[in-house]
Amino acid sequence: MSAVELSGDALAQACAQALLSRDAASRSLGIALEGARPGWARVSLRITETMVNGHAIAHGGVTFTLADSAFAFACNSRNEPNVALQASISYINAARLGDVLIAEAQERSSKGRTGVYDITVTRGDGELVALFRGVCYRIKGTVLEGAGT
Amino acid sequence: MSAVELSGDALAQACAQALLSRDAASRSLGIALEGARPGWARVSLRITETMVNGHAIAHGGVTFTLADSAFAFACNSRNEPNVALQASISYINAARLGDVLIAEAQERSSKGRTGVYDITVTRGDGELVALFRGVCYRIKGTVLEGAGT
Amino acid sequence: MSAVELSGDALAQACAQALLSRDAASRSLGIALEGARPGWARVSLRITETMVNGHAIAHGGVTFTLADSAFAFACNSRNEPNVALQASISYINAARLGDVLIAEAQERSSKGRTGVYDITVTRGDGELVALFRGVCYRIKGTVLEGAGT
Amino acid sequence: MSAVELSGDALAQACAQALLSRDAASRSLGIALEGARPGWARVSLRITETMVNGHAIAHGGVTFTLADSAFAFACNSRNEPNVALQASISYINAARLGDVLIAEAQERSSKGRTGVYDITVTRGDGELVALFRGVCYRIKGTVLEGAGT
Repeated sequence: MSAVELSGDALAQACAQALLSRDAASRSLGIALEGARPGWARVSLRITETMVNGHAIAHGGVTFTLADSAFAFACNSRNEPNVALQASISYINAARLGDVLIAEAQERSSKGRTGVYDITVTRGDGELVALFRGVCYRIKGTVLEGAGT
Repeated sequence: MSAVELSGDALAQACAQALLSRDAASRSLGIALEGARPGWARVSLRITETMVNGHAIAHGGVTFTLADSAFAFACNSRNEPNVALQASISYINAARLGDVLIAEAQERSSKGRTGVYDITVTRGDGELVALFRGVCYRIKGTVLEGAGT
Repeated sequence: MSAVELSGDALAQACAQALLSRDAASRSLGIALEGARPGWARVSLRITETMVNGHAIAHGGVTFTLADSAFAFACNSRNEPNVALQASISYINAARLGDVLIAEAQERSSKGRTGVYDITVTRGDGELVALFRGVCYRIKGTVLEGAGT
Repeated sequence: MSAVELSGDALAQACAQALLSRDAASRSLGIALEGARPGWARVSLRITETMVNGHAIAHGGVTFTLADSAFAFACNSRNEPNVALQASISYINAARLGDVLIAEAQERSSKGRTGVYDITVTRGDGELVALFRGVCYRIKGTVLEGAGT
């Protein structure tokens, strides 16, 4: 079955899985794909000893990377490849060794070739860890290699 | 010799080395400290296979993490601990497998308990990879454990 | 009745009205206070001929100013004065001559002396005009002059 | 002489003047164009009584609007129309009644259809008031109406 025959949710999942399979950075951290739909994605990550400082607090770059992966899966969920132009993160509560973080990305706008996405990062106890907002730009091609053929 | 007897540059270097020694996330990526002065720091990182996607382009989270480490070393360079409140990154050119990235952080303002830092990330060929701006907030204590004692 | 005797909502409204009465910039634009509660505020503005360009599109600074006023009313709603440290805006749809814009500010976090607020700006037809996120910092004193006395 | 015959600096000045002549918002505030070159612009504004609060401090929206105008003149300086996608501002020092603010915009990147610009806002005494960074996106057409004809 070609990619163009997939329904919205199945296409979003196929795109996210394809991206994750090619993304050694996300996989080497241990980022797991929890779900994907058009304009939406959820990923998770357990904070391990190589992600924290001497006070057992996660590096801000780890939290950012998790949110950025959710952003990528959400903005590529329609088999149209998008690249990040700009992203901002506000840190709210610390993530600590052993915490499982959840990042959930939601499209706020997709117009012409640009989009805006909001990503929230929370801990297992429901506390907010960070708020991330990303702006993306659509480039040519498809996310799935065989898409459209 | 206690930390308080160190001069500005030596204190900045001692603070950065102390932070890096406690920061498993930066060390596990391979981030190297290239220099530190009051309000300034430079770090470097070689992009390896676990940092790229299937097109050999570095994950945006890796570039962010490098810039964030430079930010941390610069804003903690006076032995006063600061935490990041907010950071923004604009992506300019891709970083690729094998590139050595340099992130240089410069204080733009430090007033009361808050500061603003600009970080530029460049490739070995001098091309701009990303522009990062961070806002930090000073907390109590010292960066060096024995400082002031 | 002193300010400290006011309930949450009444205190938020008193703070917002006090700020607006002192804020010649918001008043000269025509910004109207639509409501205030603890951590929340809503303001509105009709786009007039002095706010647009030759294509009848509102200046980005007007949209920002409206969102910034909502942010100020929300983050000062507990009679503790806060100043903006940083703000970001993403533009989604144009605002045009004659449009009535609504900006609604919601607290996402308030911890220690810093807070994060999300502000959405919409047109009368419900379309999203802009997304604004602000970081604030609490200073000493009170919003209401006689508060606490 | 048609617009396409103008040299870089003259074209930048013609574009900025054309934009300012159509921009009732900037003109009604009193924003003055101080200079324009390809990828660069400088504007100024005197803070008047309708721009400040009860403590004689300029509204953050006024500072933002000034920076945003400099951004617009710089990113439209090559007669290719650009619109703002996203902007961030960090507030450093207050601007007060009577201050003359200068906003200077410098292109940091212009690639494909997107660009990144840094704008600094300073007071007459040289103190930094704010740092602004904007991301823009090129649309079709020209800035000068008769350009290319």
